[in-house]
Amino acid sequence: MTPQAPTPAYRRLSVEERRSQLLETALSLFAHRAPEDISLDDVAEAAGVSRPLVYRYFPGGKQQLYEAALMSAADELRHCFDEPHEGPLLPRLSRALDRYLAFVDQHDTGFSALLQGGSVVETSRTTAIVDGVRRAAAEHVLSHLGIAEPGPRLRMTIRMWITAVEAASLIWLDEGKQPPPDELRDWLVEQFVAALAVTARRDAQSDALVRALAADL
Amino acid sequence: MTPQAPTPAYRRLSVEERRSQLLETALSLFAHRAPEDISLDDVAEAAGVSRPLVYRYFPGGKQQLYEAALMSAADELRHCFDEPHEGPLLPRLSRALDRYLAFVDQHDTGFSALLQGGSVVETSRTTAIVDGVRRAAAEHVLSHLGIAEPGPRLRMTIRMWITAVEAASLIWLDEGKQPPPDELRDWLVEQFVAALAVTARRDAQSDALVRALAADL
Repeated sequence: MTPQAPTPAYRRLSVEERRSQLLETALSLFAHRAPEDISLDDVAEAAGVSRPLVYRYFPGGKQQLYEAALMSAADELRHCFDEPHEGPLLPRLSRALDRYLAFVDQHDTGFSALLQGGSVVETSRTTAIVDGVRRAAAEHVLSHLGIAEPGPRLRMTIRMWITAVEAASLIWLDEGKQPPPDELRDWLVEQFVAALAVTARRDAQSDALVRALAADL
Repeated sequence: MTPQAPTPAYRRLSVEERRSQLLETALSLFAHRAPEDISLDDVAEAAGVSRPLVYRYFPGGKQQLYEAALMSAADELRHCFDEPHEGPLLPRLSRALDRYLAFVDQHDTGFSALLQGGSVVETSRTTAIVDGVRRAAAEHVLSHLGIAEPGPRLRMTIRMWITAVEAASLIWLDEGKQPPPDELRDWLVEQFVAALAVTARRDAQSDALVRALAADL
C-alpha cells in the first residue's frame, strides 16, 4: 500500500455504502442546523460528491433525504431504549435516559426543529415516524415493568411521562443544556415515580407497581 | 315586525359582524373535522354565503381562515386561564382546568389535529400561536403562585407540567374522553403538586412553594 492512498471522498463505494455515507452526512447536518437552512448542495459538499449524485440516490430531493435521515435517527433513538431485563428497575430507566439524553445532546438543533413543529419538512410521514418512537418508548417502559395489559390510567401516566421527558429535553436545550444531564436524568426518574404514585391513589394496577418499585430499590 | 323575518343568513351584516360570523363558522368546522377535510365551499355553505364572499374577507383562502380561526380559539383558550387572584391556590387551578377541559371537549378534532402536527395548514405561524398560549399558561400559573422571577428548575417544572396537561388532553380525546373530566382534572392538579414536590428536593424556591401550597389547603 502506498502512502498516497486515495482520500475517502474519492474512494469507490458500493451503492449501500454510498447511501449510508450520504445519510450520515445529511443526519449530521440536520442535527445542528434547521432543515430550512440546508440545501442539497450543502449535503453534496459535505459528502465530497456532486449534487447529481445525491439526486441519483434521493430523487425526491431534500424532503426524501430528510425523511430518510429522520428514520435513521429514529432507529438510533430506539437503540437507546435497549436495556437488558435484569436488575432493579429504576437503574434500568436511568441508563436508558442517559443514552437518550446523550442522543438529544448530539442532535440538539435537529431535535428541536423536529419536535417544535411548523418546519417546512414536517409532514404526516415525519409525524408518524416521531409517534412511532414515542410508542416504542412506552412499550419498552411497560415491558420492563412487566405489564402486558396496561389499564387506561396507567397507559395515560406512562404516555404523559414520555411527553414530559420530551418537553424537558426541549427546555433543557432551550436553557443552554442546564441543569447537568445527570441531575436532569435523576429528576426525570423521580418524576416518573411521583407521577405513578399519584395515579396509584385511584388505580390498583399502578398501586401494585409503586409497591414493586419501592421493594426493588 | 312581520312573522316572515329574513333568515339570519340573508340579514345584512356589518363588515365586522360578517367577519365574526365567518370566523365562528370556520372555527366550528375546524373544531370537529381535520383541516384537510374542509374546503372554502364548506365554510361558505355553513355560513349561508357565497364562496366569493368568503374570499373577499379572507383573500388568503383556507390557510388565512384557518390561522384567523386559530387565533380566535387561542383567545378563547386564554380566557380559560382568567381566574381571580383570591382564595386557596389549588382550587383556582382546578377551576382553570375545568374551563380548559371544557374547551378541549368542545374543539376535540381541531385540538388534536392542531397539536398532533404534520397537518397541511401547520406553519411556523400556527406553531407560534400555540406557543403563545403555552407561554400565557405558564405566566398565569406563576402569577397565581406569586413568583415574579422563577429559577430554571421551577420554570422547567411548570413548562413540563403544561406540556403534560396538553398530552393528557390529547390522550383523553384518544381514549374516547375517559376518565370523566372531573377525575382527569383532580389527577392533573395532583400531578402538579407531585412534580413540584420532586423539584423541591433540589430547589429552595420550589420547596417554599410546596410548603405554601400545603399550608393553603
